Amino acid sequence: MAAVRPAGHDAEPDPSRLAGSIARRLRQLGGIGQDPGGGWSRIGFTRAEREAHELFASWAGEMGLEVSRDPVGNTYARRPGSGPTLMTGSHLDTVPGGGNFDGAAGVVAAIEAASLLASESLEHPLTLVCFACEEGARFSAPCLGSRVATGQLDRAGLQALRDAGGTSAFQAALDCGLRPQAAEEAVWEPGSVAAYLELHIEQGRVLQEAGRPIGIVDTIAGSTRVEITLTGRSDHSGATPMGLRRDALVAAAEVVAHVERAARRSRSAVATVGRLEVWPNVVTIIPGLVRFTLDVRDIDPLRQRELVDDVLEQASRVASRRGLGVAVRPLHDQSPFVLHYRVREQLARAAAEVGAGYRVMTSGAGHDAGYVSAVAPTGMLFVPSRDGISHSRDEWSDVEDIALGAMVLARALHRLDRTPEAEA
Amino acid sequence: MAAVRPAGHDAEPDPSRLAGSIARRLRQLGGIGQDPGGGWSRIGFTRAEREAHELFASWAGEMGLEVSRDPVGNTYARRPGSGPTLMTGSHLDTVPGGGNFDGAAGVVAAIEAASLLASESLEHPLTLVCFACEEGARFSAPCLGSRVATGQLDRAGLQALRDAGGTSAFQAALDCGLRPQAAEEAVWEPGSVAAYLELHIEQGRVLQEAGRPIGIVDTIAGSTRVEITLTGRSDHSGATPMGLRRDALVAAAEVVAHVERAARRSRSAVATVGRLEVWPNVVTIIPGLVRFTLDVRDIDPLRQRELVDDVLEQASRVASRRGLGVAVRPLHDQSPFVLHYRVREQLARAAAEVGAGYRVMTSGAGHDAGYVSAVAPTGMLFVPSRDGISHSRDEWSDVEDIALGAMVLARALHRLDRTPEAEA
Repeated sequence: MAAVRPAGHDAEPDPSRLAGSIARRLRQLGGIGQDPGGGWSRIGFTRAEREAHELFASWAGEMGLEVSRDPVGNTYARRPGSGPTLMTGSHLDTVPGGGNFDGAAGVVAAIEAASLLASESLEHPLTLVCFACEEGARFSAPCLGSRVATGQLDRAGLQALRDAGGTSAFQAALDCGLRPQAAEEAVWEPGSVAAYLELHIEQGRVLQEAGRPIGIVDTIAGSTRVEITLTGRSDHSGATPMGLRRDALVAAAEVVAHVERAARRSRSAVATVGRLEVWPNVVTIIPGLVRFTLDVRDIDPLRQRELVDDVLEQASRVASRRGLGVAVRPLHDQSPFVLHYRVREQLARAAAEVGAGYRVMTSGAGHDAGYVSAVAPTGMLFVPSRDGISHSRDEWSDVEDIALGAMVLARALHRLDRTPEAEA
Repeated sequence: MAAVRPAGHDAEPDPSRLAGSIARRLRQLGGIGQDPGGGWSRIGFTRAEREAHELFASWAGEMGLEVSRDPVGNTYARRPGSGPTLMTGSHLDTVPGGGNFDGAAGVVAAIEAASLLASESLEHPLTLVCFACEEGARFSAPCLGSRVATGQLDRAGLQALRDAGGTSAFQAALDCGLRPQAAEEAVWEPGSVAAYLELHIEQGRVLQEAGRPIGIVDTIAGSTRVEITLTGRSDHSGATPMGLRRDALVAAAEVVAHVERAARRSRSAVATVGRLEVWPNVVTIIPGLVRFTLDVRDIDPLRQRELVDDVLEQASRVASRRGLGVAVRPLHDQSPFVLHYRVREQLARAAAEVGAGYRVMTSGAGHDAGYVSAVAPTGMLFVPSRDGISHSRDEWSDVEDIALGAMVLARALHRLDRTPEAEA
């Protein structure tokens, strides 16, 4: 392969100016969806998410890009070119009370990368994307926008997904002005995306501990999520002897403790009970019903399912011993994604050109990039998360790291334009 | 002591007519506060509770009794007489989604007992009472109406008690049309109550298993209630290795399991975690904060406090080992009540006269009778609860048992009128 002129060579980017621009954009985004309880709540398929997409559209418009919105709320900004498009972006929704970097960093980096490439000639079109409703917090299943765009979720699927209040994803999308009934119009033409790159905060501590500013993702862990309901009997907390109780919360506590023990025994799996609700949830009533979720992640799909089975067997044993009913509802089951080897190589070369130390790593968190990898060559960049904190108002990434990531992103897009991955 | 003519001797009560009347009244009450989720929700200091008190007032009015309401919502119906009053009654509020017998059985039995005594001459006045807000479900502390009436809770106390939404008991009372600012007007004159009797459903299985239709309560268990908050760190459920987590729910699960173990080791205590809430309560976020209640009951006040201390020590150990914060807020702390020996004797004699097999027993549940016992000689009757179920829509007591209880109640009131307990 011949030497490739690095992107931005003519107009060497000024890292501190770049960091300043990123900080300004993040501050602007941070004005949208602040949660009175702390952090941000730009929940998927709500007005706050739409407002954030409009801010992105205004940035892209100022750069002369052509903005479009699809029926399920994915927002695109396109620079023209010929043939299939290069694409980069992320999402702007958050978990309830989450941080202002998860997703946002990748969208802002995509804008800055496009800006760095503005004076470069590119053969392929370049498309920036904000995917809708990436967080699985609301509908217990993630990446709704990218799954629709890549043909992995349809109108019926949007109707089947429901939030805790019983509202379907379909209805929520309608309610915030989208047109989910036309979901099929959101699906990409086959072969229309030449490559997809996503920059994201790591949400872990690997980069911080390794002292590297850039992670290049090799594999995205799979995630299996189920909802478990234990049904006992509501009784008076004073008048019911310990031996006559069918307490659903004590049973759930046994299962929650088992989840941690089982995951600790595993080599790479993590398992979490994130949501747990008690009925009737009154000081003086023995809990008659407890409903909770289990989220198991692993880069090994076999271990991923074995751990789920192990927890469900434990739940059955506990329920049977205590005379309780147990019901299990599957919420989401996604195998790990192995990202494209040659795109990864281009990211590594771009990092080397920028002089950014990198580490090839796995992602415990799921990302739109995983779903996109099913239809287009896909790569992912991580920037460090302070102390690994994410899905929390304490989430933090330094804008200098995001700026470095944006530079790597720009160079990698440039490389992919000149050396399409199929020929690399 | 000379033989006493049993009450109702002239007009021998017809048990099946009495049971029919009780069933009709319970059906009428059952029309108030039905919960769409099943059972009844006549929560203390709400319109539904007020409506139930108005139904009681209409029954009493039809019987020619003089109805009055005090500023905190206790409703009285009085038959005139001289000297301090005999009193009987219970409450009409329920826990959320509770049954239609807890409290209601005692109020209906009081109405029927007054009816059985209508043709009897009594020296003392007879007062029927519906105490307000007996259930501790809403404000985490029980018996607000009877505590105000007996001088054990004042205006400031009502202001300090808050429900889960932050509304004070004072405000809730105002909002449903009461005058809690005049709470001191609700306090009984010293010596104005000659004796108080309360019929209540057992809420346990002692009578069912013993095959006895009547329980005579000797001691009411004490109850200590605290709220425990464990604070860890919200993190991403996929990206955070097991070893780096500060999961507040796994810690809470350890404490909940300990509560059961510790109570089972005790001879007579029961301990319950009835309410538990998780923040942010999202599938994909490690719980950063869990808040739960502990309710410990025992007839032995020393064991009662020892068990609470034991659980709080365990919570501290778990929090310290896991790097979590722990905070404890006291909600309620009531020692056991030993009821009046001579009133108990009169209840036993009345049961023998009616021919009802009885058993002297303790009450695990708290009752207005406990607080009243601080200012007047007090006794309590239990009728059987099917399978011991209470604080549940499946709560059930046979109207025939309540009818038998009403007959014992009437005879005991008659005995107490003729043979005031002080002279017994």
